[in-house]
Amino acid sequence: MASDEFDIIRRHFNRSELAFAVPAVPLAIGDDCALLRPSPGCELAVSMDMLVEGVHFLADCDPFQLGQRTLLVNLSDLAAMGARPLCFTLALSLPRSDAPWLARFSAGLARVAAQHHCPLVGGDLTASAPTVAGRVGPLCLCVQVHGEVPAGAALRRSGARVGDVICVTGSLGDAAAGLHILRDGAWPELATPLRERLLQAFHAPQSRVATGMALRGLASAAIDLSDGLASDLGHILQASGVGARVELDELPLSEALCAAVPPEQRPGLALGGGDDYELCFTVPPQQLQAVQARLAALGTPVSRIGEIVAGSGVQWRRAGVPTALKVRGYNHFDGGGAPT
Amino acid sequence: MASDEFDIIRRHFNRSELAFAVPAVPLAIGDDCALLRPSPGCELAVSMDMLVEGVHFLADCDPFQLGQRTLLVNLSDLAAMGARPLCFTLALSLPRSDAPWLARFSAGLARVAAQHHCPLVGGDLTASAPTVAGRVGPLCLCVQVHGEVPAGAALRRSGARVGDVICVTGSLGDAAAGLHILRDGAWPELATPLRERLLQAFHAPQSRVATGMALRGLASAAIDLSDGLASDLGHILQASGVGARVELDELPLSEALCAAVPPEQRPGLALGGGDDYELCFTVPPQQLQAVQARLAALGTPVSRIGEIVAGSGVQWRRAGVPTALKVRGYNHFDGGGAPT
Repeated sequence: MASDEFDIIRRHFNRSELAFAVPAVPLAIGDDCALLRPSPGCELAVSMDMLVEGVHFLADCDPFQLGQRTLLVNLSDLAAMGARPLCFTLALSLPRSDAPWLARFSAGLARVAAQHHCPLVGGDLTASAPTVAGRVGPLCLCVQVHGEVPAGAALRRSGARVGDVICVTGSLGDAAAGLHILRDGAWPELATPLRERLLQAFHAPQSRVATGMALRGLASAAIDLSDGLASDLGHILQASGVGARVELDELPLSEALCAAVPPEQRPGLALGGGDDYELCFTVPPQQLQAVQARLAALGTPVSRIGEIVAGSGVQWRRAGVPTALKVRGYNHFDGGGAPT
Repeated sequence: MASDEFDIIRRHFNRSELAFAVPAVPLAIGDDCALLRPSPGCELAVSMDMLVEGVHFLADCDPFQLGQRTLLVNLSDLAAMGARPLCFTLALSLPRSDAPWLARFSAGLARVAAQHHCPLVGGDLTASAPTVAGRVGPLCLCVQVHGEVPAGAALRRSGARVGDVICVTGSLGDAAAGLHILRDGAWPELATPLRERLLQAFHAPQSRVATGMALRGLASAAIDLSDGLASDLGHILQASGVGARVELDELPLSEALCAAVPPEQRPGLALGGGDDYELCFTVPPQQLQAVQARLAALGTPVSRIGEIVAGSGVQWRRAGVPTALKVRGYNHFDGGGAPT
């Protein structure tokens, strides 16, 4: 089905459920640029992600879930800075103009946009490859989210100090387990409700936006868990010039994960699986109680998993005793291989 | 060659020639978000473009020229709003980790970034397809530029009024002619210096940033010419609810274009060829002299090509007499076909 690119934008993207007006955006889709007006005294936080068919999602995935997830994982980066979402831009390279697919994809985006008051304000639409050629490239998405945060209040990776407590929100490894189910048909004997919970963790991660904003002024450093705790906590340690001790028995594991996965495979998923989009943050001990109170008020589960120490890298422990553990996050250029 | 994605970022992107510090960006590459601090009283102008191998550039193109062009065409969108460049983000989906290619690409970006004081501040790097699979997807780039413009001063598409003069900067059709040379080996008998000028118009368009800023407060509407004058002027007319009369004999054509292209093919290139990245703008007649003075001071050639009239669409004229002309811009989903 051939369709004009402006027509596709009008029908599927520049519609009121997705590209709704907000005061911070005086000019949106339809000009050379969108115009953004952050609140006085605020900085703009921006983050960009590219998602490629066959790398970040499967070719036959549900477009509604893809739309949801595309925006949620980007909002998670705003959450990790303590920023309030303002709006997002989207570039799409489409293998073909497929109206039902586009309608579902845009509905998934619109649901998350509405939940987070974060409208689509611009972007680009292009074909994946010349339609005159036989070959058609993969679907490729690029999203940039824009948020605002009072000047100086953003949560950075570099603020962790020796003695700080290390916390994570929610539970770890569920999304990675969900991806195993989706891709490999893993654990076919798992009860349907638990299976659905793991799949949902992959398709529609939380994006802890309100939690990130609540951590402003309390947390000393924060990151969102996209590549797995081992890799992402490593970024905080490196940026802050410190080390960490983490107690494996304190890692928050869900009922569904424990039902599905044998004990020996759980650390691999919880630490190296990625895609959880929970927050990992550090907090000075004297602020811990305030953090717990604020997060309880939001209904965000929070677990204390370790502490920041002098040095570098993570010392993994079990019942207080150091234990050898090799974990790594996903790397795009290492030739593949599952985390161990 | 396998290489870690963080290593690629460090070596080729997070380096001082490209990711240099500027006061408007208190936090750049290396955290969950970059932080931008526009000047007080300014709005942020943002524009995103996706470029796909085989659609927007050829697989074997020179990576330095690709890097230059990728950023230049995005800066052109800031120019069209009258915005001052602040910084840009870049997402890359790479078929492979090719150090010499990346070094050249990043050098092309760095040259334009330095010229326009517009550093790289963040983005994303991913593989085009799982490296374990045999198939590798095309290179895909996504750039978002960020500029600032005093609140209310941005040049929009919607401000053209009946009686306004229509102007364009530079000359039209050169980039389209350059692409014909590049892709089809057109006009092999053309003298080398002229041929080089047309190729250069395609590889390194001007990006009329200073010109766009100079038009603030004078031009009533503006757009940059990416799809061809016929299509892009149409956007101004539609957004402003007006029509236009354009005198074909007034279209600025370069010496190189006239030497290469027979007269009957020139309108097709000048109006429908695209890729010129010159500015088309409208200006109330009483401001025309001020515009000409400012643009002369910048050394920007400007041509008066027509005027805004009541109604809709463009009436093309030759020596003041209406003439039939069918021109269209590039459309990604219409099954191809050259403009006529």
